[in-house]
Amino acid sequence: MCGIVAVSGNSEAAQLCFLGLYSLQHRGQEAAGIASFDRATGQSHRVRKPGLVSDAIQAKDIAELPGDVAVAHIRYSTAGGAGLKNAQPIRESYRGGPIALVHNGNLTNANLLRDQLFNQGALFQSTIDSEAIVHLIARSRGATPDEQITEALSQLEGAYCVLITVGDTLYAARDPYGYRPLVIGALPGGGLMLASETCALDIAGARYVRDVEPGEFIRIRGGEIETVSRLPQMVAESQPCIFELVYFARPDTQLWGYTVDRARRAFGRRLAQEQGAPGDIVISVPDSANSAAVGYSEQSGIPFELGLIRNHYVGRTFITPTQAGRDFKVRMKFSPVREVLSGKRVVVVDDSLVRGTTSRALVNMLREAGATQVHLRLASPPVRWPCFYGIDMPTREELIASDKTVEEIRAFLGVDSLGYLSPDGMLECVADEGETYCTACFTGDYRAPLVDAQQGFAMSSHC
Amino acid sequence: MCGIVAVSGNSEAAQLCFLGLYSLQHRGQEAAGIASFDRATGQSHRVRKPGLVSDAIQAKDIAELPGDVAVAHIRYSTAGGAGLKNAQPIRESYRGGPIALVHNGNLTNANLLRDQLFNQGALFQSTIDSEAIVHLIARSRGATPDEQITEALSQLEGAYCVLITVGDTLYAARDPYGYRPLVIGALPGGGLMLASETCALDIAGARYVRDVEPGEFIRIRGGEIETVSRLPQMVAESQPCIFELVYFARPDTQLWGYTVDRARRAFGRRLAQEQGAPGDIVISVPDSANSAAVGYSEQSGIPFELGLIRNHYVGRTFITPTQAGRDFKVRMKFSPVREVLSGKRVVVVDDSLVRGTTSRALVNMLREAGATQVHLRLASPPVRWPCFYGIDMPTREELIASDKTVEEIRAFLGVDSLGYLSPDGMLECVADEGETYCTACFTGDYRAPLVDAQQGFAMSSHC
Amino acid sequence: MCGIVAVSGNSEAAQLCFLGLYSLQHRGQEAAGIASFDRATGQSHRVRKPGLVSDAIQAKDIAELPGDVAVAHIRYSTAGGAGLKNAQPIRESYRGGPIALVHNGNLTNANLLRDQLFNQGALFQSTIDSEAIVHLIARSRGATPDEQITEALSQLEGAYCVLITVGDTLYAARDPYGYRPLVIGALPGGGLMLASETCALDIAGARYVRDVEPGEFIRIRGGEIETVSRLPQMVAESQPCIFELVYFARPDTQLWGYTVDRARRAFGRRLAQEQGAPGDIVISVPDSANSAAVGYSEQSGIPFELGLIRNHYVGRTFITPTQAGRDFKVRMKFSPVREVLSGKRVVVVDDSLVRGTTSRALVNMLREAGATQVHLRLASPPVRWPCFYGIDMPTREELIASDKTVEEIRAFLGVDSLGYLSPDGMLECVADEGETYCTACFTGDYRAPLVDAQQGFAMSSHC
Amino acid sequence: MCGIVAVSGNSEAAQLCFLGLYSLQHRGQEAAGIASFDRATGQSHRVRKPGLVSDAIQAKDIAELPGDVAVAHIRYSTAGGAGLKNAQPIRESYRGGPIALVHNGNLTNANLLRDQLFNQGALFQSTIDSEAIVHLIARSRGATPDEQITEALSQLEGAYCVLITVGDTLYAARDPYGYRPLVIGALPGGGLMLASETCALDIAGARYVRDVEPGEFIRIRGGEIETVSRLPQMVAESQPCIFELVYFARPDTQLWGYTVDRARRAFGRRLAQEQGAPGDIVISVPDSANSAAVGYSEQSGIPFELGLIRNHYVGRTFITPTQAGRDFKVRMKFSPVREVLSGKRVVVVDDSLVRGTTSRALVNMLREAGATQVHLRLASPPVRWPCFYGIDMPTREELIASDKTVEEIRAFLGVDSLGYLSPDGMLECVADEGETYCTACFTGDYRAPLVDAQQGFAMSSHC
Repeated sequence: MCGIVAVSGNSEAAQLCFLGLYSLQHRGQEAAGIASFDRATGQSHRVRKPGLVSDAIQAKDIAELPGDVAVAHIRYSTAGGAGLKNAQPIRESYRGGPIALVHNGNLTNANLLRDQLFNQGALFQSTIDSEAIVHLIARSRGATPDEQITEALSQLEGAYCVLITVGDTLYAARDPYGYRPLVIGALPGGGLMLASETCALDIAGARYVRDVEPGEFIRIRGGEIETVSRLPQMVAESQPCIFELVYFARPDTQLWGYTVDRARRAFGRRLAQEQGAPGDIVISVPDSANSAAVGYSEQSGIPFELGLIRNHYVGRTFITPTQAGRDFKVRMKFSPVREVLSGKRVVVVDDSLVRGTTSRALVNMLREAGATQVHLRLASPPVRWPCFYGIDMPTREELIASDKTVEEIRAFLGVDSLGYLSPDGMLECVADEGETYCTACFTGDYRAPLVDAQQGFAMSSHC
Repeated sequence: MCGIVAVSGNSEAAQLCFLGLYSLQHRGQEAAGIASFDRATGQSHRVRKPGLVSDAIQAKDIAELPGDVAVAHIRYSTAGGAGLKNAQPIRESYRGGPIALVHNGNLTNANLLRDQLFNQGALFQSTIDSEAIVHLIARSRGATPDEQITEALSQLEGAYCVLITVGDTLYAARDPYGYRPLVIGALPGGGLMLASETCALDIAGARYVRDVEPGEFIRIRGGEIETVSRLPQMVAESQPCIFELVYFARPDTQLWGYTVDRARRAFGRRLAQEQGAPGDIVISVPDSANSAAVGYSEQSGIPFELGLIRNHYVGRTFITPTQAGRDFKVRMKFSPVREVLSGKRVVVVDDSLVRGTTSRALVNMLREAGATQVHLRLASPPVRWPCFYGIDMPTREELIASDKTVEEIRAFLGVDSLGYLSPDGMLECVADEGETYCTACFTGDYRAPLVDAQQGFAMSSHC
Repeated sequence: MCGIVAVSGNSEAAQLCFLGLYSLQHRGQEAAGIASFDRATGQSHRVRKPGLVSDAIQAKDIAELPGDVAVAHIRYSTAGGAGLKNAQPIRESYRGGPIALVHNGNLTNANLLRDQLFNQGALFQSTIDSEAIVHLIARSRGATPDEQITEALSQLEGAYCVLITVGDTLYAARDPYGYRPLVIGALPGGGLMLASETCALDIAGARYVRDVEPGEFIRIRGGEIETVSRLPQMVAESQPCIFELVYFARPDTQLWGYTVDRARRAFGRRLAQEQGAPGDIVISVPDSANSAAVGYSEQSGIPFELGLIRNHYVGRTFITPTQAGRDFKVRMKFSPVREVLSGKRVVVVDDSLVRGTTSRALVNMLREAGATQVHLRLASPPVRWPCFYGIDMPTREELIASDKTVEEIRAFLGVDSLGYLSPDGMLECVADEGETYCTACFTGDYRAPLVDAQQGFAMSSHC
Repeated sequence: MCGIVAVSGNSEAAQLCFLGLYSLQHRGQEAAGIASFDRATGQSHRVRKPGLVSDAIQAKDIAELPGDVAVAHIRYSTAGGAGLKNAQPIRESYRGGPIALVHNGNLTNANLLRDQLFNQGALFQSTIDSEAIVHLIARSRGATPDEQITEALSQLEGAYCVLITVGDTLYAARDPYGYRPLVIGALPGGGLMLASETCALDIAGARYVRDVEPGEFIRIRGGEIETVSRLPQMVAESQPCIFELVYFARPDTQLWGYTVDRARRAFGRRLAQEQGAPGDIVISVPDSANSAAVGYSEQSGIPFELGLIRNHYVGRTFITPTQAGRDFKVRMKFSPVREVLSGKRVVVVDDSLVRGTTSRALVNMLREAGATQVHLRLASPPVRWPCFYGIDMPTREELIASDKTVEEIRAFLGVDSLGYLSPDGMLECVADEGETYCTACFTGDYRAPLVDAQQGFAMSSHC
């Protein structure tokens, strides 16, 4: 998943990137990094640290990131191994000068590219897809960064949004499928900000200008946005990821023409129509399912209650007491409100079901808190296929719906009834204007070819 | 405000205290500390650190806190100056052996006691009330800790819950007014846990046993709870703090016979009866006003919407861009959902109004996001008086309702209408069994005498 | 052992204390601390950290120590347990205001005083002698700090130099025996500096003014040095510690009328007269025995060689390989120069012999490096008694000379011959003007009564 | 300058590297790093930290460096900019697997190689020479690491010792001139250790086996040392750096057939013959000139005295008081012993004179301490030329002897007389067997061509 931000043409570039990362914290809590370029000295600077943005990046770090152009990254996954070597931005020097790059998404030919580059004598620092992109740029015979990056992009397959600085020029590109979002805003103090979600523009007070379009490669310098080139469309229609609407993006973000909260509300209402439940109350698994649960309550007329409290202070490591008992992890995250639940038939609305282990513990907790019945309703279809386009998901074996029927899942979770939103129902909620979406995780319909698998390589699944 | 926890008779005492603190994180984010006593070596151990519990206390710290009895504290306020010298537990040696103490509340004769102790040759490390209590214990001529602590408690005035270890014996006491909560639970792995709120028992899997009663002083050793003494009642009825129900405690906590969520829900419903509003939607200022807003929606029939997203990753320090513009701080904390708010007459429910500055910024943000009207409804009466019993509040001058009419406040906030819950309405919601409450912050009716002020000292207001 | 520094009347007080501590680093590597008082705010400030001064105290720490008066301490020993609670300065508030104290030495009635104070209701943070002194000051019924400190000092027995600030007044005192050194210097930028050794004055560019005399209690304010009181002399003659000359002080320090290097040179020459050796070369155990070895070579005519290299980068912790073999620790500290030693009869001069374990390993290393004979000569008499006046020494049982003859020690060390300087020889070198010394560690002649032991308490041996 | 270590075939590889670095601490105090390869997992690991070895590398770091082969580096210089990006080991992946490399020396075609590599699409992380070597290895078309490294080495010009791991195979190479030392030892617990100096073997208890010869490229696996290839000799005779004997190596190290202490002693004796002085005492500038000063005293008959004490606790940063006065830095490092110096004509022996600024301050300090005359004698010839072979020296402009006569230097330093060892005298001391040396810093006779300068690039001068 991960999130990316860039600022060009503002003397507070690093600071504004920090703000942007902060508003994208939900896209990754593993590590944060910012790289800036300072025209005054011709030097690039980089800070990468583990942890939450506001812990990782301090005032003294910002002070070490001078310059009016910067790129930034927030990392979701620990995949790729411990340590910071896989944290972004990537920052190197090549013949074009200092280059920094951040990447959100997942290449489907990453391992093939890496293999080819290895054979050409390339050195790799990390195991992330993004490093291959920088090598392709450096190895291009193009005369200018415009040509070099265009050539590099043409060799990529899969999902990517990239933000790149070469010296003081900022470049941005989005894959031709348009899997992941990337928006441009105008900063109040001058200059432009690019980010994964509009909520990053909002926090910085930036005005939304437009999306970077699928397949578009743009250059930003001196406040001007110029489209350098357009990558050929691979499929007739763009394929924005519907899972961003289902779960990943922030509710106040505008995405694919919808406010995320509105989309989720519609999922919840539709779910109530499709999958009614004999409940006394509707509760949400906070916070990601709040919008859907309110929609479900609205449509069904069953009152919405706050039956679970989410603990928002969950840190990175815990010391589990030996006597902690089962369901300890879920208890650290959620607390049931006994008086709300006790003696009630409870309809629990969640956004999606992946492995099922957390939900099972949650259901158990609700019953212990006095719920007489638990009816689980999911505001998305069964997740049956892993994502190779940038959502960090478990392997197929770990996806509970990959090989189990709804009844088998119901029995595993220990709920009285279980209902999923239908794929068609989901799409109808968010296709007012005929929008299309990538729904591969629900359907297995992978539009961008899984090149690595076809060539006998493992599929990469870093964000 | 702050929060306290203790464990006796469990070999994972420090770890269970950590869990308890973690669930009390809402009571203080400034610092956390744990002190344990290890019978094997006769040594006491202490860790105090700034920041959130799960950042501050690490596995290696727990490893340095052996023993089966421990006390722990979470600190709310930076009052008393920078640094950790004012963080708790206090840990000293006196003739009775190693003593550790944590304190939640606020003495009204703290500065008088300090003055008397200074004149008797006492040394002070900190500026917090709690240190005086330890001096009184050490200076008592009582032959046993039972007698020494009883004598010390008899000299205290105001609000306190204290947890004290002398060697491996745990003591607990609550002031005769019963201002702050203190509950006892039985741990599944053996031993007892005491904590400010029941949610700490829940996370540790402990079963609620009973409250420490107002004025009760108990001793815990070998799994036995014994009432050592009872302090004389000062007033006919106990005075639990109603503001714990209004704002401070966690929704899933059981307090004064009510689940906090239920009490707030009732406040919200009553508020709708008393202070209707011509709105299209009801929104909450998350998360503290969620229960009241749902109640308001329920009663009024105006649909409940998620119009504000709360950013849960707010760190301790921020680097404010010079171009951040006004309302920056509120923007770091809350994000408006434009599509929900746009074109709507919005009823905003909040739990209480203290200074008014955050609300003013919030109102401004809602209007910028498209709200056509903003009607603010508060699920408690005007806060007119500072608290000297342990709620950290600004001075009288800073309390907006101390010298302004409702209309003046409305104009200051820039809302279309403003409505408060009435004092009687509030009390009727939570006095089913004739419970009484301290409502001093609304009424100025201070039952525990403000001794320091009467003697010409400043009032202490550490938690 | 430890070292102390104070500055009064200079706006760079903390910084100059830092320099002073830095030059006293040989007196302790365990921890360093500085406390300052800032008249502008009436606040005292303190920093205490483990490790070497230049690691422990950073520029940002100095920035947090404003004010023109400061006291500082460097800690030798880990005795008293892990952690910083036993590090100095002690900093408290008492009725006279903020008080800070540093102490070099060892009280012989520390545990008796502690017991008495406990019985009077005192609280203790640490297990060091120095805390009792602060309690005695606070509990004095004297009207002024002058009186309070005088009264406190009159209750102390044993060895101490103390530097105390009460508000912006600096006090200094030295025990009537004069066991430890304490000198006064005038700073070039104005104000006065006090320190354990003259080398601290030198580094700060301060001019030596005079010693604080045995039994003298002085007050420094506004650049004036005033003798507040004189403690009664307990014995006819002062008892400066001869071990400071033998081993502890820095060679360039002026002490008891001698430059340390000169005294050690004289010890070495006398040793050569008393204990000749059939050697080809003389080597030193660097750096403490360098002066004595040069003296030995001079007198004996045997050439001085650099046969051992000292590693000056020894850190605080080491990871010993399992295959490190015996004598690993001594190999980390010293390296033999094979070509110098090979085939030679080596006279090794060391300053003193305490446990003998390091010397035994060193002798073994010299033989492995090719020395055909090893003759150990010690520039002081056999150390037979522990010091209770501030030199950190092992217990009597651990002192190799406490129960072994010279021949037995020789056999234990595995040397070809062993010779000690005689007590009379040592004294004659440094008694030109009839100076007297404490030689208790060699003779067991303890002049300051061992009150704690007489009263049935353990003897304290913190520095 | 820097220092390098490697271990192969010992399960405590990282720990033994730590010991080796520790004994090479004099070769660099800026940063330390170790990289290991763990056959069990096929993973490489790396730790790099600023500061002294025993501060930088902790037990937990060693625990993160599993495997039985490791390379390590200690960094001298801050050249190349702040931060750790220029610290070693370099650790990358290439088609041959994980590769780690440490390098001691200085390539004279580093910038040419970098330029060529840039043009071939290489990415650079750092600005150090060593990174180019790894690129050359990865880009070689050779089929095996043996061939790849041989090809890479054939492209290097200048001074280098490199230690490289590719997977679990250790490689070592030394430039054909033999500028820097590199020795092989057999570890007592099995396996081999390679290091810049024999003192690293000694601390680990390893037995010296042999030198890596000039131009030799060896492979170590399974305890076998095999010579893979020999680089063509560029000049008739090898060119070991005489400055290692003069100043840089540790006195107990065996180098070019001499123990360093013996060589310096000989320089001192010869200096006394060539440059007598009318002194009362001879003192050393400790510790590097100790051997030479003893030699001077021996030959001249003027007694050797300890007139300067070196402070061995100098940390990395200091807070200079504004009133510190001139010569502050030298005062932090050295303390004069007044009683030794006072009234004396002092012959000061130092190893070499580079900029002259420290010596000038030192001379001033000696005079203030009472020296009536100061005669400076240098145990090496005037340093007139910068080193491009790995000794970190200032630019030509900064070398005081580059454009000044001895009389001018004497006047600048303010000494009564000044004498240098003659070039021939120096060489005669250490050419018993006809050894040849690089004396470029004294003579400007640069044998390895300065390719970068010839091609119009700046000369690199990282170690």
